[in-house]
Amino acid sequence: MRALTFDGSIAKVSDVAKPDLAPDSALVRVTLAGVCNTDLELVKGYMAFRGTLGHEFVGVVEDGPPEWLGQRVVGEINFACQSCPICHEGLQRHCPSRRVMGILEADGSFAEYVNVPIANLHTVPESVDDDSAVFAEPLAAAFEVLEQVHVMPNQDCVVLGDGKLGLLVAQVLRQAGAQVLVVGHHPENLEILARRDIETIEDSNWTPGSASLVVDATGSAEGLQRAVAATRPRGTVVLKSTTATKTSVDLSQLVVDEIRVVGSRCGPFPPAIRALETGSIDVRSLISHRCSLNDASDALERAGDPGQLKVLLEP
Amino acid sequence: MRALTFDGSIAKVSDVAKPDLAPDSALVRVTLAGVCNTDLELVKGYMAFRGTLGHEFVGVVEDGPPEWLGQRVVGEINFACQSCPICHEGLQRHCPSRRVMGILEADGSFAEYVNVPIANLHTVPESVDDDSAVFAEPLAAAFEVLEQVHVMPNQDCVVLGDGKLGLLVAQVLRQAGAQVLVVGHHPENLEILARRDIETIEDSNWTPGSASLVVDATGSAEGLQRAVAATRPRGTVVLKSTTATKTSVDLSQLVVDEIRVVGSRCGPFPPAIRALETGSIDVRSLISHRCSLNDASDALERAGDPGQLKVLLEP
Repeated sequence: MRALTFDGSIAKVSDVAKPDLAPDSALVRVTLAGVCNTDLELVKGYMAFRGTLGHEFVGVVEDGPPEWLGQRVVGEINFACQSCPICHEGLQRHCPSRRVMGILEADGSFAEYVNVPIANLHTVPESVDDDSAVFAEPLAAAFEVLEQVHVMPNQDCVVLGDGKLGLLVAQVLRQAGAQVLVVGHHPENLEILARRDIETIEDSNWTPGSASLVVDATGSAEGLQRAVAATRPRGTVVLKSTTATKTSVDLSQLVVDEIRVVGSRCGPFPPAIRALETGSIDVRSLISHRCSLNDASDALERAGDPGQLKVLLEP
Repeated sequence: MRALTFDGSIAKVSDVAKPDLAPDSALVRVTLAGVCNTDLELVKGYMAFRGTLGHEFVGVVEDGPPEWLGQRVVGEINFACQSCPICHEGLQRHCPSRRVMGILEADGSFAEYVNVPIANLHTVPESVDDDSAVFAEPLAAAFEVLEQVHVMPNQDCVVLGDGKLGLLVAQVLRQAGAQVLVVGHHPENLEILARRDIETIEDSNWTPGSASLVVDATGSAEGLQRAVAATRPRGTVVLKSTTATKTSVDLSQLVVDEIRVVGSRCGPFPPAIRALETGSIDVRSLISHRCSLNDASDALERAGDPGQLKVLLEP
């Protein structure tokens, strides 16, 4: 089968062996996959990953338990042991011996087929087409903010960054009732939010105020410092950016203003799938490019262009 | 009167004018003052402070409202406007136009007299002597951890640092019921905690585990990174260290493990005073040196010696 693999220096499409069905898993034929900024960090060296990239997908179960055969599915990316104390607490996404699809010791979804543990599968409702379903994983990551922080109706929130994740987080916060201001660099991306009546401002026109919740979705190492500067005393910063580089931070404002910084990663799929089903979150406007898996290497480069939103790959 | 003043380059004791009584304040004759690590950071340039240093004290009201005259008092250090929205929320310690005793635009307690707003005063119970009362401010800062984080009985906590604040935080956490391990460099300091049945370990023998709450009381810029490394997924780091320098941090573990970092500064005086009254927290063992205010300049240097605990100044 074809797959986009990374060998530590180059990401390229090649023919690899179709995987056998793994234990307790389903073999999923990928129908659509999405490129995430984490993929771009991985090819810069983050996590020292080797193998098939990709962790956003929708597909159809081709092999596995009979009740799953033919089901259209999306899948959670953390493959947990299900037996350690952390898993028993319900924190499977943090299992210390987890593998992570396309990120850590598990092949990913930029391929014709991918193995996904049964425990990680979610059926896609009929009314949710592939173009929407492929957003289940990043939308779940946006909902994670609500799992970690009690966002109050009418709370003043700032989202730094108008990339893919920023646009999803902004909509999730708005849906929770919050007052949201999104600070970005790309008028065409901000326009997507303006159409949903979410307030936006171009970065160069913005003066950091003192919001009670600031989400850093810039994807840049400098995001934390900017977010802290925009947060009120005793306020909260949610840090969504994972980068391969160290960053220099002045921690004194964090201490003096008693700010809380919450690292945030993967989130719960069920609310994401429900939001896709009701159409309450606009994901389709985020599709900026689609191409064949054969051109995945170019697509990965394109996904790194400033302002680029979701790039989709069709195996 | 004599006072230890800092002019931006040198901290020295000299004769300065005795202050007039300020509006809405009491003029307090200082009977004992304590040196804090923040004083040492201030003379390194932190906050660009100029004036009389010192923010830990106990004293007697010599001038002010009749009902306060002759009262033995301690005082909160954040002089708030009491009229802005932040003050009206009860967050006076975060008032954006606050002055801070001996730290920001207000003269401090390393002097024979200091002005303290009436709103900041607390009467010292008769049974609490000056040697204990002078710890009210740093002990309040230790109690701040319990204001910010829900510490559960039996929670596994690690305190990094066996300096003054580390020893107070460890005792406060233990008093809240937590399982506490203190990691330090100074056997004689750790021994103070061992006498209170608090578990301790020398840093060189310690392997970071995965505690659910880690308090960084190292006072060093590297404390955050070490604390994050010792915290379990979804765990909490309380950051107590304020330093004048920037620090380089790898934020990826914070995001991947979804760790929460809470900056922590000044705390509530009433629980601190109650603890001093009942004797539930050992503060007297933390007194490592006392000297006349005349020798304050030397005392400040001595307070910076490794392992040195509380240095007290007698005006």
